[in-house]
Amino acid sequence: MAKDFWITDQPINLNDCIAKVVRTEAGAINTFIGTVREFTKGKRTLFLEYQAYIAMAEKKLCQIGNEISEKWPDAKTAIVHRIGRLELSDIAVVIAVSTPHRNDAFAASRYAIERIKEIVPIWKKEHWEDGTEWIGDQKEMVSYMDNLPTEEEMKND
Amino acid sequence: MAKDFWITDQPINLNDCIAKVVRTEAGAINTFIGTVREFTKGKRTLFLEYQAYIAMAEKKLCQIGNEISEKWPDAKTAIVHRIGRLELSDIAVVIAVSTPHRNDAFAASRYAIERIKEIVPIWKKEHWEDGTEWIGDQKEMVSYMDNLPTEEEMKND
Repeated sequence: MAKDFWITDQPINLNDCIAKVVRTEAGAINTFIGTVREFTKGKRTLFLEYQAYIAMAEKKLCQIGNEISEKWPDAKTAIVHRIGRLELSDIAVVIAVSTPHRNDAFAASRYAIERIKEIVPIWKKEHWEDGTEWIGDQKEMVSYMDNLPTEEEMKND
Repeated sequence: MAKDFWITDQPINLNDCIAKVVRTEAGAINTFIGTVREFTKGKRTLFLEYQAYIAMAEKKLCQIGNEISEKWPDAKTAIVHRIGRLELSDIAVVIAVSTPHRNDAFAASRYAIERIKEIVPIWKKEHWEDGTEWIGDQKEMVSYMDNLPTEEEMKND
């Protein structure tokens, strides 16, 4: 994988993401891993589907990396997000940030996950025990009911 | 590896540590990875040696896990620290904490690395470009010059 910010439909190997940020200048790497949780507010998830407008999603992940480099000039960042069907405990997203010292690694990693939720066009379909629901945006402010987002919505970043 | 908190003299495989905290109750895993940095305040490190009072170090790592469980009852924690000779960029320590939601994973992981520096009897010998130095405690408040810590010091936790 040549990119540092990418979308994949395959299981994520954590080490692929870490390898992109390991370097002798760094003493600290913070990693955030999002996994598929079984219960959300008492509702049971059976599995999830993620769908993305891939080119735009990768562009936005890369933008987040650039924002981090502006805020933490010594940081190196890599992010991968999986799409398609994910089972319970599968890894949906990995963020890795390396920095010389640990304060910055924690702060930048935290920044990255919040920004992913805000600006990256990835949609999640919850397959609940009792039905399905498209979670419209990553902040979960919009529900798409049981329909796919439209082409227009997927382009609207 | 049966333990969730352990010292090893072998290269650390990140996935071994992550696997211990992945579970369907969790939606977030935060990982802190400490790696061997080349430069510290302008001084070049060639390689490092870590030495530990192993039984006590594992006991203290386990204590940190218990402290985390008290503060964040939904958290599951695993920690591994390597000893022996480590080259630049080698992984010295991995902390993994899984929680239902990400706030707690970040906070608990951060707590763990600070506590490791405070209470775990592991000593670091810097092999600088221009000499060697035992870093007496993890907060780097004590230097042991070019001598190993005494048996007594290694037992003093």
